[in-house]
Amino acid sequence: MNDDFFDPLREGRVPFTTVDGGVTAARGFRAGAISCGIKNPEATRLDLMLITSDVPTVTDAVFTTNKVRAACVRVSQQHIKDSDVRAIIANSGNANACTGPQGIQDAKAMCKATAEALGIRMRQVQVCSTGIIGMNMPIQRITPRVKELAEKLTPTGSDDASRAIMTSDTKPKTYSIEVPCGTGSFRVGGIAKGAGMICPNMATMLCFITTDAKISADELKRAMRSAVDQSFNCITIDGDTSTNDTVIVMSNGQADAPPIKKGSEEAKIFRCALHKVMLELAKMIVADGERVTKFVEIRVRNARTHADAKKAAEAVAKSMLVKCSWHGSDPNWGRVIHAVGYSGARLREELIDIYFGGLIACKGGLTSNTPVTELEKVVREPRFSVTIDLNQGSANHIVYTSDLSEEYVDFNSSEYSAAIHAKRQKGLA
Amino acid sequence: MNDDFFDPLREGRVPFTTVDGGVTAARGFRAGAISCGIKNPEATRLDLMLITSDVPTVTDAVFTTNKVRAACVRVSQQHIKDSDVRAIIANSGNANACTGPQGIQDAKAMCKATAEALGIRMRQVQVCSTGIIGMNMPIQRITPRVKELAEKLTPTGSDDASRAIMTSDTKPKTYSIEVPCGTGSFRVGGIAKGAGMICPNMATMLCFITTDAKISADELKRAMRSAVDQSFNCITIDGDTSTNDTVIVMSNGQADAPPIKKGSEEAKIFRCALHKVMLELAKMIVADGERVTKFVEIRVRNARTHADAKKAAEAVAKSMLVKCSWHGSDPNWGRVIHAVGYSGARLREELIDIYFGGLIACKGGLTSNTPVTELEKVVREPRFSVTIDLNQGSANHIVYTSDLSEEYVDFNSSEYSAAIHAKRQKGLA
Repeated sequence: MNDDFFDPLREGRVPFTTVDGGVTAARGFRAGAISCGIKNPEATRLDLMLITSDVPTVTDAVFTTNKVRAACVRVSQQHIKDSDVRAIIANSGNANACTGPQGIQDAKAMCKATAEALGIRMRQVQVCSTGIIGMNMPIQRITPRVKELAEKLTPTGSDDASRAIMTSDTKPKTYSIEVPCGTGSFRVGGIAKGAGMICPNMATMLCFITTDAKISADELKRAMRSAVDQSFNCITIDGDTSTNDTVIVMSNGQADAPPIKKGSEEAKIFRCALHKVMLELAKMIVADGERVTKFVEIRVRNARTHADAKKAAEAVAKSMLVKCSWHGSDPNWGRVIHAVGYSGARLREELIDIYFGGLIACKGGLTSNTPVTELEKVVREPRFSVTIDLNQGSANHIVYTSDLSEEYVDFNSSEYSAAIHAKRQKGLA
Repeated sequence: MNDDFFDPLREGRVPFTTVDGGVTAARGFRAGAISCGIKNPEATRLDLMLITSDVPTVTDAVFTTNKVRAACVRVSQQHIKDSDVRAIIANSGNANACTGPQGIQDAKAMCKATAEALGIRMRQVQVCSTGIIGMNMPIQRITPRVKELAEKLTPTGSDDASRAIMTSDTKPKTYSIEVPCGTGSFRVGGIAKGAGMICPNMATMLCFITTDAKISADELKRAMRSAVDQSFNCITIDGDTSTNDTVIVMSNGQADAPPIKKGSEEAKIFRCALHKVMLELAKMIVADGERVTKFVEIRVRNARTHADAKKAAEAVAKSMLVKCSWHGSDPNWGRVIHAVGYSGARLREELIDIYFGGLIACKGGLTSNTPVTELEKVVREPRFSVTIDLNQGSANHIVYTSDLSEEYVDFNSSEYSAAIHAKRQKGLA
């Protein structure tokens, strides 16, 4: 079996080059960040960032489906109705979630300060927060600093911005490409933060993407929904979704590539490019999940419908027993088949084949002849794929996930909580 | 807030006494167990058990909803169509799952040997297995020993039987009661095994219950379905369901209580009694889950519908982040409310109250004034309740669950898997 990881640009036969610059790789965007003491009182860690476009944009955003929504999400959802977004302001250290009317007031105050500093309207600002739930924002440390932040904006500020949204992430996440298109080219780049609580339908996950492609609001929306569905909605670390998840894509038309028209070859190229950037950022989020030691691409093949393929893949990705077995480098296909069995996907046990990497472990629902030592070699790698072929139809689905480690539990039960309590006692958000 | 744990007999105002005897507490039942070397080659651990009724029975059974079903489940599902079940034979050490036609043949061979030893028909035998998936049964070590096992049956054999079905359980699970009814009384008692993979809709979970009540097949079925729904389908440890789960209830009418008629006071008493026995066994399974250190009763109150209450309770019970917080004795209501938020239950964030034990932690979606140190005292206990009041309607649901420990991950990623590999290499199931 072919064991290459999935790549939307390779599938679409679209040439591209990776470039530096992240969220400021595209022309006409600037970014910057400062330390406000939201994350730590000494204010030694970047925790407030700003991204702007110098010119009008067409912007789309996708927000968490959690019914408990952070105040910043509510405000941004109102503001996105005006699609000429000029700025994204985001902080880490406090999620501004479960904060009631005060939270709404604080989110609006961040937009107002940004609008004033940049000379734009409040509704042209998107606001995002990530961090602790249920504490009021230390807003008096934030709004007075926004003007200073606006003065620090540069066309090379992506790196600072990517660091300012980190919470339990161990490294910044950034990816940007240049894609030939018509007689010119366009760029797409972004930054993201993830770590805990990563699951389909968005998580404590922020992703800001910019592009200089010339694209209509409708075409951008279509490309965005499709790319989110095949990237951020296909990752799971611990099955939780958060109150704050947001993906924003700003396009400002500054590229020399021709305008992207519905149904055109250029539209196909743009979709592949946006999908690629989101998928790379989504995979970085999984690989950097809290105390993750394995990155796994789960592919369900030949299901009766896409819904069946998705159910099966997600059940495997969310099974704690399966994730524990990977952590122990155990090619345990028994746990995989039983998760597939309870997933709700339509199947016939005697038709199921399961592969670790390119090697078959289970053939027709029974143990294969592949030596366990060979299968173990695959699962011992830090990155591998598991393929479940249902042999029932032709629908496929891929999910990206991780193992479950003792360190994950330890991290989420002791150190992290202790840190939160310490902050609560100091009145720090 | 009243913080007593839920009790169906107290709710129904039904007096009862706990009695010894487990699955042989009711009159006319016998049990026994032997070591066949399925669990370990030295055959020092009980791994094959038999339960019989001396007289005809009315029996009902509920099986796993996993689409990958063990061979023994398939055979038992065929046999249960004949409700005069006289015997249950069960082994631990090998699940006889993902074993194809050979597995079916082996399960039938176990029934045949039992029928011959007891002088009954094959279809009067239920067969259950629990243990490793995907290995053929060492059937040559089992069938020749069934006659010897049949000779060991005694009216006090419940304890041996309860030990013979243990896998990663740390202790046997047994519970039995006597309930006054009309001019006499009846008994209900049972044994169970659980540990890993415990989730609603059954798990690697076996439960055998006997009663000497006089009851019709229809009334038994109704009582059984209701009791299973409110006990075994309300527990979750790690969210997985298995290929082998089975609950069997045998009734033989040997009690001096009057026959139980549909809609009568006696029928109500019997339902409460069966619910109580199943709930106590289900709770023992959770408390003895793999490396569990906390037992938690999650109650969702005042949801719009029962389906909403159930969704909310199950999302909280299955959240790895919530379970980790309990493990660290952290009264983290933020993680609870965000699990409720993504559960799909209809809610209004500003109406949600959350309690740890009797203490309010979150009032109207915002942090309460209860000192964190008081809340921590509750969560530091080995058993506590978490109540989520949605203040939306009048539907309630309870789920029983546990924390998630580093030891769970360690157990399921290394030692256990290593043990399985060692067995596979020795050709031992």
